[in-house]
Amino acid sequence: MPVLVMKFGGTSVATPDRIRRAAKRVGVEVSKGYDVIVIVSAMAGKTNELVGWVNETSPLFDAREYDAVVSSGEAVTAGLMALTLQEMDVPARSWQGWQVPLRTTSAHSAARIEEIPTDNINAKFAEGMRVAVVAGFQGVSPEGRITTLGRGGSDTTAVAFAAAFGAERCDIYTDVDGVYTTDPRISSKARKLDKIAFEEMLELASLGAKVLQTRSVELAMRYNVRLRVLSSFEEQSDNAGTLVCAEEEIMESKIVSGIAYSRDEAKMTLISVADRPGIAAAIFVPLSEAGVNVDMIIQNIAEEGRTDMTFSCPTDQVKRAEKALHDAKQRGEINYHDLVADMDVAKVSAVGIGMRSQSGVAAKMFQTLSDEGVNIKVIATSEIKISVLIDRKYMELAVQALHDAFELEKAA
Amino acid sequence: MPVLVMKFGGTSVATPDRIRRAAKRVGVEVSKGYDVIVIVSAMAGKTNELVGWVNETSPLFDAREYDAVVSSGEAVTAGLMALTLQEMDVPARSWQGWQVPLRTTSAHSAARIEEIPTDNINAKFAEGMRVAVVAGFQGVSPEGRITTLGRGGSDTTAVAFAAAFGAERCDIYTDVDGVYTTDPRISSKARKLDKIAFEEMLELASLGAKVLQTRSVELAMRYNVRLRVLSSFEEQSDNAGTLVCAEEEIMESKIVSGIAYSRDEAKMTLISVADRPGIAAAIFVPLSEAGVNVDMIIQNIAEEGRTDMTFSCPTDQVKRAEKALHDAKQRGEINYHDLVADMDVAKVSAVGIGMRSQSGVAAKMFQTLSDEGVNIKVIATSEIKISVLIDRKYMELAVQALHDAFELEKAA
Repeated sequence: MPVLVMKFGGTSVATPDRIRRAAKRVGVEVSKGYDVIVIVSAMAGKTNELVGWVNETSPLFDAREYDAVVSSGEAVTAGLMALTLQEMDVPARSWQGWQVPLRTTSAHSAARIEEIPTDNINAKFAEGMRVAVVAGFQGVSPEGRITTLGRGGSDTTAVAFAAAFGAERCDIYTDVDGVYTTDPRISSKARKLDKIAFEEMLELASLGAKVLQTRSVELAMRYNVRLRVLSSFEEQSDNAGTLVCAEEEIMESKIVSGIAYSRDEAKMTLISVADRPGIAAAIFVPLSEAGVNVDMIIQNIAEEGRTDMTFSCPTDQVKRAEKALHDAKQRGEINYHDLVADMDVAKVSAVGIGMRSQSGVAAKMFQTLSDEGVNIKVIATSEIKISVLIDRKYMELAVQALHDAFELEKAA
Repeated sequence: MPVLVMKFGGTSVATPDRIRRAAKRVGVEVSKGYDVIVIVSAMAGKTNELVGWVNETSPLFDAREYDAVVSSGEAVTAGLMALTLQEMDVPARSWQGWQVPLRTTSAHSAARIEEIPTDNINAKFAEGMRVAVVAGFQGVSPEGRITTLGRGGSDTTAVAFAAAFGAERCDIYTDVDGVYTTDPRISSKARKLDKIAFEEMLELASLGAKVLQTRSVELAMRYNVRLRVLSSFEEQSDNAGTLVCAEEEIMESKIVSGIAYSRDEAKMTLISVADRPGIAAAIFVPLSEAGVNVDMIIQNIAEEGRTDMTFSCPTDQVKRAEKALHDAKQRGEINYHDLVADMDVAKVSAVGIGMRSQSGVAAKMFQTLSDEGVNIKVIATSEIKISVLIDRKYMELAVQALHDAFELEKAA
């Protein structure tokens, strides 16, 4: 029988009653003839509670024990989901990560999936079981200890199971009904996309759209797993939600598919850095070693052998960046007059695979912002994305203006 | 290094702060030179919450999924305890049941321990780890599924580890400071016992003293594990609490060691049963098959070929007993005029290994109750115990009178 993977996030399994609603959706797919693998998150709030206890106990915790503690929420929902399905006369049982076994690396709290053997679960399907309920987020290391895949890791579990079992589709049930052209709270013209390409979803996810864990999209792209994002709280039709799929499946696409934004970016400027070969490495190697995720970089034109170097990083890494650069200066590796952090910025990005073949997108974006009087502080581009750093107060205005300029309210 | 097992119940690990207090006690034993195996229960209330969800989901639940859900509470405290010890610079790590692996039968929700391999944990002790924190209550079946040992099962886990590792002692930390001659809430003269024999503790545990799970005492007796019951909430001296040990370790013991009671017993009388060979089997086999735990049995003298048969069973099994007997009557296997259930009774027992060699204990007990005007409804005796069923309203009076009569307020 064809296999379908269905993943339910924390709000979709927050109470026994919501688990029952989710189980009904599973029952519908079973009655269509699918063997279903259900991946569950912990009940909403449970993982935060567990993480809170760990932090209270041990600020610099042993990640192996962190994983042992925080993985327990998913075990609970997996068992409850299996019981609920059994109550509905759907043959089901639960699996924890180590029982599959979902083998991962030993990188505790951020482990990567190495292997998902299918024999255990397939043997049960062959015996007549119709639903395998698997605890998301968790796996087992080569040393036999419990690992977790990082926050949001149940999305990755779901995609990995879909790849391993050759599932027809991987449905991600969440609290939004799909992927939008932009955040509907910012632009009332935001439109739900029926389809979006993996590459675009990947950019949107890493740019702050919180619908899917970035790694799950990477994995879906690599194994060509058709991902559908849809709401557990609305009645579903067959083409509900948004399908994340290969570019080829999208007949006609617009040049720009979506406008993303992030408030969590800070702009940092090193003023008057000696401009010499190797200076970029001297600055960015210590930042990388300190765990600072540098996003955009801009170097001013040098004057009299000195230049300004500007970069952006997440706001919660500013302190760490300042310390890393200060230490490098102390060690004599770099020299600068001042380091200025500007937290009052936001990043706005236009994303679309159509950019590859169409020129003029950047020009249109800059013109639109200019018409609105928005000053651009830093620019970064990729093949399918243009990002700008602007003053935070203009963020909503910029998103709305770009959404209008690229006519995203209209279907392709 | 000598091994010590320390078990902390739910109230002793109810919050991160209490876990810290428990960890300090562990630290003290480590500094004395012990390698310590810590067995933890779930935080107080957590298992009840999980059981509640299971019952809400599925009244007639699949015990395999029940176990998968309710075992998760112990996983949390095991990780948190290991983290707390690490914070105190005590080398520690956590084990879940399947990681040891603590192998059990497949009798889900009431599994029995079959094997505890010591190699994994001993290898870590050899590497310098000082504390192995093990999630109590849970194990793994031959099929690789999570099992649980029944409510209170962490006591049994602790004793089993003490037996497997040849521990010097198994300390059970709980919310009472030891085993008393009777319930201090009923008799203000109740005295804490310094030592009590396994056999006595076993009788007291099955008679309603809630200090230890009965199975854990059985296991301790079989493997001669010295068990100490003590409070996590009081400062400890070296001979704090009560030591449960072999009879030989107790120099001089009183004839009666304690007075136990239970309010949860009902008296059932089958009136006018045909008195024929095999009638006892015809009555008690169906009760046993229906899962009714019959405790005391009394048969009146037969008159004209008919007799009354009286037995006691837990109050919450009365309905089940009535149905089983009614069904047996329908099938023509037994015949009786009426079945009368008396819920208004209590069981009071005197327990002591000294009874074996001393006569007159029963006579003294009956005389004491008679002097107080308490009517005895049913009597049951074993080598080291005499139990009587009396009207519930006399229970406190009977316990106090017997405690006085056997002078239990005085040390041996």
